[in-house]
Amino acid sequence: MKKLINDPENVVRESLEGMAKAHPDLLDVHFDPTYVVRADGVPDGQVGILSGGGSGHEPMHNGFVGRGMLDGACPGEVFTSPTPDQMQAATEAVDAGAGVLHIVKNYTGDVMNFEMAEEMAEESDIAVESVVINDDVAVEDSTYTAGRRGVGGTVLIEKMCGAAAAEGRSLDAIADLCRRCNENVRSMGMALTSCTVPTAGEPTFDLGEDEMEIGIGIHGEPGRKRMKIEPADQVVERLMEPIIEDLPFSDGDDVLLFVNSMGGTPLIEVYLAYRRAAEVAEKHGLRVVRNLVGPYITSLEMAGLSITMMRVDQDTVDLWDAPVHTPALRWGV
Amino acid sequence: MKKLINDPENVVRESLEGMAKAHPDLLDVHFDPTYVVRADGVPDGQVGILSGGGSGHEPMHNGFVGRGMLDGACPGEVFTSPTPDQMQAATEAVDAGAGVLHIVKNYTGDVMNFEMAEEMAEESDIAVESVVINDDVAVEDSTYTAGRRGVGGTVLIEKMCGAAAAEGRSLDAIADLCRRCNENVRSMGMALTSCTVPTAGEPTFDLGEDEMEIGIGIHGEPGRKRMKIEPADQVVERLMEPIIEDLPFSDGDDVLLFVNSMGGTPLIEVYLAYRRAAEVAEKHGLRVVRNLVGPYITSLEMAGLSITMMRVDQDTVDLWDAPVHTPALRWGV
Repeated sequence: MKKLINDPENVVRESLEGMAKAHPDLLDVHFDPTYVVRADGVPDGQVGILSGGGSGHEPMHNGFVGRGMLDGACPGEVFTSPTPDQMQAATEAVDAGAGVLHIVKNYTGDVMNFEMAEEMAEESDIAVESVVINDDVAVEDSTYTAGRRGVGGTVLIEKMCGAAAAEGRSLDAIADLCRRCNENVRSMGMALTSCTVPTAGEPTFDLGEDEMEIGIGIHGEPGRKRMKIEPADQVVERLMEPIIEDLPFSDGDDVLLFVNSMGGTPLIEVYLAYRRAAEVAEKHGLRVVRNLVGPYITSLEMAGLSITMMRVDQDTVDLWDAPVHTPALRWGV
Repeated sequence: MKKLINDPENVVRESLEGMAKAHPDLLDVHFDPTYVVRADGVPDGQVGILSGGGSGHEPMHNGFVGRGMLDGACPGEVFTSPTPDQMQAATEAVDAGAGVLHIVKNYTGDVMNFEMAEEMAEESDIAVESVVINDDVAVEDSTYTAGRRGVGGTVLIEKMCGAAAAEGRSLDAIADLCRRCNENVRSMGMALTSCTVPTAGEPTFDLGEDEMEIGIGIHGEPGRKRMKIEPADQVVERLMEPIIEDLPFSDGDDVLLFVNSMGGTPLIEVYLAYRRAAEVAEKHGLRVVRNLVGPYITSLEMAGLSITMMRVDQDTVDLWDAPVHTPALRWGV
């Protein structure tokens, strides 16, 4: 295992300490229980936006905490759900009297623990709405999931819901927006290599020197198919076609196209893949009106990529364009 | 070789086509000769800021073209200097009557070709100043370099010079600023793994499963020392101490601390490394007033990191904070 770490048991804590040192203007990092909240606090009467999940997918979610996106995030250990007490403490920290939206990726542990946190919050008289994101078209049910997995769509949804909260929309309205975004987004990923959880010390799975896995999950869960490596353009088509068919996206739709590195794939390759993804979208008559290219939801050092496409309208485009200031996404400020 | 590419010969071109598709508002990408310039053109009477070098270090340099940073960049083939005709065409494209600054990383091919381009530009009556960046403290002379290599300091310098140009400073003033920044910045890198140039198909060098290379160059050139992997905190100290001794940085200095992923190192590890780098800086009485954390000058999929530290003053901090809008760095707009 070749990693820049100290004790494998302390990776998440020490990395969070680094984030706290790097971004004191944006983040307050708490330990025992562990959660990250925006340093300037949620303005009175504004809905709090909270997410969380296993670590190892950085910058998601901690890197999206700040202004105009997430108000808080609960990082679990690597590829491990955070616990209800983390979520409860974070929910209380981001409640400014207007309630809190939980954005939950569809993994069994995350869903169960966020449900418990929701019950705890209600006992504290905090209004909570919870929306489960399940945008991955690769497989129904998976190693850690009943139903579809939540993946790259989460990044886009967190941005849009954070902007809606900053605009002063109500908890119900933002929860509706979140569901509407989830209904309009689809993703699929692939891997060229595995990744190694620090405490495991061994790769999560094995892939031959000439193999790739199509439809991979962000924890290395099996996808649709293991096959020989193909040229990038064909790989991109293998991801784009199921995405387009699934929604289905239709001729004339406006879309946000997000091509994401799984962590170990260099940017030169991600842009090369974006080229073909945009061409495929155009071939189907889709108008790519916004895009995002780079490593935003990763699987440690896994080489590979995922593609996410959301059907957008004027409202969601405006929410995407709204100012954001977080460690990983920033514009307009 | 596991890469998301099509024909190894077309990687740079297809990746640039992807960038052009993703950022039409920011970039105009030209081929034959190949160069990238800001889409909105350099305002009349403003100094043009141009850089360039081998590809494979993305987002540097193309990802820094836009508003408030580079006006143009000349990408060579992977790890290969761009040619004088690329530089000449780009110089002409970014000259708006106030001359052009060439920011050149110290590699023999880059320096020689930029010198030829400077002579060509002078024949076209374009005023050109050229500054060679050589911030890498690891080694004197190297595989492709006489003297010290130019590495991470280039990213910071390109930002500051771009901001100075946007402010309307003269070519002479910006060239002086560039030299002053170069005198005040030091860097050092390390690698856990090698990387593979697509057309070579084989790793650039070999490293044992338990080995790392301290002082690595961004093309995999040998560093100071090959040794057994150590905990991240010790690795960071091995980079920080030579940086601090070299300038020398002094108690009370304000610094910009930049911890950079070489490409394959996940962000969770980069922040873990930042934690210790900031602690070491503080231990020496340095005040980390600004920072940058993430993959900004990479070596394809190499796992590893580099640390860059610049002594800053009010002028360079203001230039750092000034608005920038490029594919890779954006704030204030």
